[in-house]
Amino acid sequence: MKRTLRLAMVGGGEGAFIGSIHRAAAALDGDWRLVAGAFSSDPERNRRSGEMLGIEPERTYPSLDALLVAEAALPPEKRIDAVSIVTPNHLHAPMAIAALDAGFHVFCEKPMALNMEESRQIAQAAARSGRQFGLAFTYSGYPLVEEARVRVARGDFGKIRLVQVEYSQGWLSQAIDREGNKQAEWRTDPARAGLGGCLGDIGTHAFHLAEHVSGLQVQELCADLATHVPDRRLDDDVSVLLRLTDGARGVLKATQVAAGDENGLKLRIYGEHGGLEWAQMEPNTLNLRWLDRPAEIIRAGGPGLADSTLQRLRTPAGHPEGYIEAFANLYRAFANRIAGEVGKDCSFPSVDAGLRTMAFVESVIANNASDRKWTELAAG
Amino acid sequence: MKRTLRLAMVGGGEGAFIGSIHRAAAALDGDWRLVAGAFSSDPERNRRSGEMLGIEPERTYPSLDALLVAEAALPPEKRIDAVSIVTPNHLHAPMAIAALDAGFHVFCEKPMALNMEESRQIAQAAARSGRQFGLAFTYSGYPLVEEARVRVARGDFGKIRLVQVEYSQGWLSQAIDREGNKQAEWRTDPARAGLGGCLGDIGTHAFHLAEHVSGLQVQELCADLATHVPDRRLDDDVSVLLRLTDGARGVLKATQVAAGDENGLKLRIYGEHGGLEWAQMEPNTLNLRWLDRPAEIIRAGGPGLADSTLQRLRTPAGHPEGYIEAFANLYRAFANRIAGEVGKDCSFPSVDAGLRTMAFVESVIANNASDRKWTELAAG
Amino acid sequence: MKRTLRLAMVGGGEGAFIGSIHRAAAALDGDWRLVAGAFSSDPERNRRSGEMLGIEPERTYPSLDALLVAEAALPPEKRIDAVSIVTPNHLHAPMAIAALDAGFHVFCEKPMALNMEESRQIAQAAARSGRQFGLAFTYSGYPLVEEARVRVARGDFGKIRLVQVEYSQGWLSQAIDREGNKQAEWRTDPARAGLGGCLGDIGTHAFHLAEHVSGLQVQELCADLATHVPDRRLDDDVSVLLRLTDGARGVLKATQVAAGDENGLKLRIYGEHGGLEWAQMEPNTLNLRWLDRPAEIIRAGGPGLADSTLQRLRTPAGHPEGYIEAFANLYRAFANRIAGEVGKDCSFPSVDAGLRTMAFVESVIANNASDRKWTELAAG
Amino acid sequence: MKRTLRLAMVGGGEGAFIGSIHRAAAALDGDWRLVAGAFSSDPERNRRSGEMLGIEPERTYPSLDALLVAEAALPPEKRIDAVSIVTPNHLHAPMAIAALDAGFHVFCEKPMALNMEESRQIAQAAARSGRQFGLAFTYSGYPLVEEARVRVARGDFGKIRLVQVEYSQGWLSQAIDREGNKQAEWRTDPARAGLGGCLGDIGTHAFHLAEHVSGLQVQELCADLATHVPDRRLDDDVSVLLRLTDGARGVLKATQVAAGDENGLKLRIYGEHGGLEWAQMEPNTLNLRWLDRPAEIIRAGGPGLADSTLQRLRTPAGHPEGYIEAFANLYRAFANRIAGEVGKDCSFPSVDAGLRTMAFVESVIANNASDRKWTELAAG
Repeated sequence: MKRTLRLAMVGGGEGAFIGSIHRAAAALDGDWRLVAGAFSSDPERNRRSGEMLGIEPERTYPSLDALLVAEAALPPEKRIDAVSIVTPNHLHAPMAIAALDAGFHVFCEKPMALNMEESRQIAQAAARSGRQFGLAFTYSGYPLVEEARVRVARGDFGKIRLVQVEYSQGWLSQAIDREGNKQAEWRTDPARAGLGGCLGDIGTHAFHLAEHVSGLQVQELCADLATHVPDRRLDDDVSVLLRLTDGARGVLKATQVAAGDENGLKLRIYGEHGGLEWAQMEPNTLNLRWLDRPAEIIRAGGPGLADSTLQRLRTPAGHPEGYIEAFANLYRAFANRIAGEVGKDCSFPSVDAGLRTMAFVESVIANNASDRKWTELAAG
Repeated sequence: MKRTLRLAMVGGGEGAFIGSIHRAAAALDGDWRLVAGAFSSDPERNRRSGEMLGIEPERTYPSLDALLVAEAALPPEKRIDAVSIVTPNHLHAPMAIAALDAGFHVFCEKPMALNMEESRQIAQAAARSGRQFGLAFTYSGYPLVEEARVRVARGDFGKIRLVQVEYSQGWLSQAIDREGNKQAEWRTDPARAGLGGCLGDIGTHAFHLAEHVSGLQVQELCADLATHVPDRRLDDDVSVLLRLTDGARGVLKATQVAAGDENGLKLRIYGEHGGLEWAQMEPNTLNLRWLDRPAEIIRAGGPGLADSTLQRLRTPAGHPEGYIEAFANLYRAFANRIAGEVGKDCSFPSVDAGLRTMAFVESVIANNASDRKWTELAAG
Repeated sequence: MKRTLRLAMVGGGEGAFIGSIHRAAAALDGDWRLVAGAFSSDPERNRRSGEMLGIEPERTYPSLDALLVAEAALPPEKRIDAVSIVTPNHLHAPMAIAALDAGFHVFCEKPMALNMEESRQIAQAAARSGRQFGLAFTYSGYPLVEEARVRVARGDFGKIRLVQVEYSQGWLSQAIDREGNKQAEWRTDPARAGLGGCLGDIGTHAFHLAEHVSGLQVQELCADLATHVPDRRLDDDVSVLLRLTDGARGVLKATQVAAGDENGLKLRIYGEHGGLEWAQMEPNTLNLRWLDRPAEIIRAGGPGLADSTLQRLRTPAGHPEGYIEAFANLYRAFANRIAGEVGKDCSFPSVDAGLRTMAFVESVIANNASDRKWTELAAG
Repeated sequence: MKRTLRLAMVGGGEGAFIGSIHRAAAALDGDWRLVAGAFSSDPERNRRSGEMLGIEPERTYPSLDALLVAEAALPPEKRIDAVSIVTPNHLHAPMAIAALDAGFHVFCEKPMALNMEESRQIAQAAARSGRQFGLAFTYSGYPLVEEARVRVARGDFGKIRLVQVEYSQGWLSQAIDREGNKQAEWRTDPARAGLGGCLGDIGTHAFHLAEHVSGLQVQELCADLATHVPDRRLDDDVSVLLRLTDGARGVLKATQVAAGDENGLKLRIYGEHGGLEWAQMEPNTLNLRWLDRPAEIIRAGGPGLADSTLQRLRTPAGHPEGYIEAFANLYRAFANRIAGEVGKDCSFPSVDAGLRTMAFVESVIANNASDRKWTELAAG
């Protein structure tokens, strides 16, 4: 009999956006059951959150530390398998390390940590504990992102020349970070968000997607960071020229002040013979263009998909799957890996993705502060 | 503490499409937990399905009858609250009636039954049992379908003149119903599917959506049914002229032989001042057009949405929600109704939708068999 | 040395929409030069129009009769070759017949005439004069309409099953025909527009496009005409069920009260293996969908086009061509036919298109007045 | 009586792309008549071209010099008004200067010249001759580009923060410049094309559009030029970070190796309150997005357009206008300016646009050769 894995959550109390998404993603396929949590440092909010989520009161813990101690003491058939970390960024590293060292698998909201040093400590904790570490670079969970990756890797487009990625949001166009919006507030506070603002929040998604799908690595970059909203303490707009392996060139744009834009993550990759375009807001379509024949529209559920794409789909063609399903693909792969489900999809962003995106953030910040054009990014 | 409701499923064993969707939809928000089932009349397939779904072996029952007897005997804090029926169409009526009469709420895949007589019997069973009956006219669960309904109802477009709905699929373009495709096989078998083929399978979705959003009722219709694939026993293509209340006119098209089309359900409604267009395959966009000002794009999560639309959304703008989320909205509303969650969304298609769509099917078939142009559809 | 043909225009004075389009279309490729005209029955407006168009004062005639007499008397190297008729519909027949009988080719705005009887008289005049008669079913001039026609004809989609055409406008949503809009006024006056309102004005375009591209003929139809705007004397909304040759079925919709719609002519055709979709408002794209492989986007100027499509294009891929260019393709083909340019595109809608669309109009009106479901349309 | 202006063309013989577009653009509205030319340095090709275009043999000249001498000697009522220069780039400057000095207006294909020095000489010639100099930055002729410009200028979006422009083509993805494609050959030859390859050919269009619509000027830039196709002598891919007036930031991308792309010029501009997006391949739509209200679709011919936009339109909404019509808008404005048509559209790209784009080309090349990040672009 298949075992439903047991999950605890840290953070993600009432009203938190990303916590509810993690929960829905974990629940969708029946692979995970949320049984414990430390949802808020505010005791009353923590209690209400646990109650709302149907968690037994005794497993709604006041802190991660309390949770780890108590769960470790439970018998294996009741004890949690993994912890989801959905707190602000500055808590990711200490919490991930504590949970790994307590013997639990960890699925962590991105970014991995505040800086490279912390990120390396998590990597070491994962290595020494032998536990799995998953990182929510959600967009790699979309079925047609996988299809794009497969097609680039098998050479459909020939040698890759251009990698263009952009992530365009508008929700920080005004100073809502100073007007009580909690999401905006911590994301623009260097102490809680890390060195990059827009750069860390969404620039890393764009970077990860570009490298993940292209199979190339950024070797050198040249960046311009801007802060358009007065008195904001972190960047809200990022533009980066990229030089990638094998002579490919690229441009990465990420912005949170494109007023009116929603969640416009878009990737284009061109090789010698053709190119692809994928846009997160219409995720069930992958556009292919060719030098010598008509453009093709690859559709989720349509003909000609790779096996690894099909494994990430739940519905027939024309029944849209979205963000939660993409997220659920990561949680399912994480479960499959833990359960040793050979032959099923076990691939999810992990320590490597965390280190690589952190290196990107640090290189961009260094380059932005410099008069020299190019800054190297060490091979990951 | 919020109670997670307990669900049993009839049908939906391994490999069944719609069963897995019902399960994901029920699980998504944590409102329901699947705890029992009679997944297949094949004992081995039934056993494997229950195991795969993490159901306790003793609650994987050989039949609905066994399930109803056993569950009714359980203490209230363990007993199921509702039964999901996801069998072929000819079993909907007897099963729904049995479950209602056993005191359980029922959520049933559409169509309600094979004919109007059966449908009325379900309606009576629901009335006498005082139990809820939900019917999976899934597309009414999309947030922007609700938004469209609200805007029509509050008169944004003025008096409605035109209602145009189409549902275009291509998957039955070949005789796959005679070549081992189980989904295709029973859908084209009058004994299991009912009187209409394409008409019952998707024509009813189109009809329900059109009346649901427009707030109008079809009063007269004129239909042409075709069967394009040789030896098929039911219609695979439907075209209907509609005359609706208040002088509105319309056209309904449904086809399963539009080769290459996926799941193209599309609705357009025009009034004196403007019109709307919604397409299921891009469900997070609602297009509005106006006589005297620029067209507007209403977006899921964007500015200006009705409260009842916002209640059907889980993510911020630009994070696509899809078919499973729409379905989950129905299951959540069904749970809210059962739990008496006043102030939350408690609206889902029920007996009325079932009777109305059945009347549509019977009128179309009668008209198609006649030389007279118009056939009345009694007010629902 | 290539000869630029000489054109006269009847109607199309200052402020007339369609006259200016005919002039631009004729001028675009240098095939025609406008040298004479009778632009308005109002002498002052006629004079001003001729002056504005750079016509010599002595060739700005007070009437078509005066024009025909005077031009016939000119030496061949100065005399016009053809007359463009862009007057209201009720003048098409007498003018076309007069011009043909005077020995001039005629290019006529559609519809051909007010009724079938007049249309047959034009056909006879064309036959006895040996002159060319062109009819502005403009949409058949689009390059990708030609491409669609070619691909259907060569069997790419297999046997055709479905033909769906719609023409959706909104500009007559209000009673502007009673408020001084000249275009609207004569189009809704039976004496000047003919028997059909929306039916004759745009329903005929939809019908022509459907038969032209599908290569099929409508054999039976069942129609519903509506007049939504109070006191309007002709239909403003048309819905027709179609039964075509070889068992194909179809639906034709045309409306001028789809408030907010612009000029939404759209054609879809499906066969056994796939289908096509073309929309006039994005005319440089032809969408193909297939049962067994990804959808393709055929683009004006892109790879894989038929020779006859390429002949209708002026620019490389990605440089949009539009309505005037489509129109110009008809004028160029008309010139090529007159000049005997073998090997070049000489195909334009003519007498057959006029008779066929007129038969459609009359059949729809007859069916609409009847209680019987189907009305035959004689083979054209 | 309105006077049709008389035009001569240099270059643009048989088979030349851009020459035929200039001719169609000039002819479309009846403002210009092509009466003379020196179409090719190959006498036989020149003769054939003149004949094909209906030019009198004695006005088909062997060279521009011969043309200028002969036309200047004609009486004013026969003499040309202006010369169109559609030769390869290296001939633009000498020819433009000669024609201006001979007293004729000049409409020149872009780029203005090979370098800044030549460009300044043209500017001086225009100044001393008092003649008009038009430059074919065609994309500024599109009606909705004008609409975008107007809306930015009147502050609809607030202070502008982001200017993103891209021009993506794929036709030089292979070494067709070494395989007999004439268009490709001279465009990649520094002696004939100038310093920039893709940069000069299309990067300048992107730059001009960005400054023209935003009303801002690029003050500093940081560029990366690449040559992806082996042995190509000029860049085929351009990426530039932009810092504009008033703190705006931007990115400009231009490429001719985006395999499968056609003519993808796209502009996005964002201010404090909203943003706009315009794409050349769907030029009749202008997308507006807002922080606080639904996105709007501005349509050519639709409600709410500026007067200067309406003057650039020929057809009602929904009748697409394209590239030739945009081009014709420039020729019409050029004619209106020459004819002194006060109150009509007299605005076309001229000397300023030429100098500004040339400065951009030179700055990009200088920056690309440097290790320093930013290069200034002097105010234009």
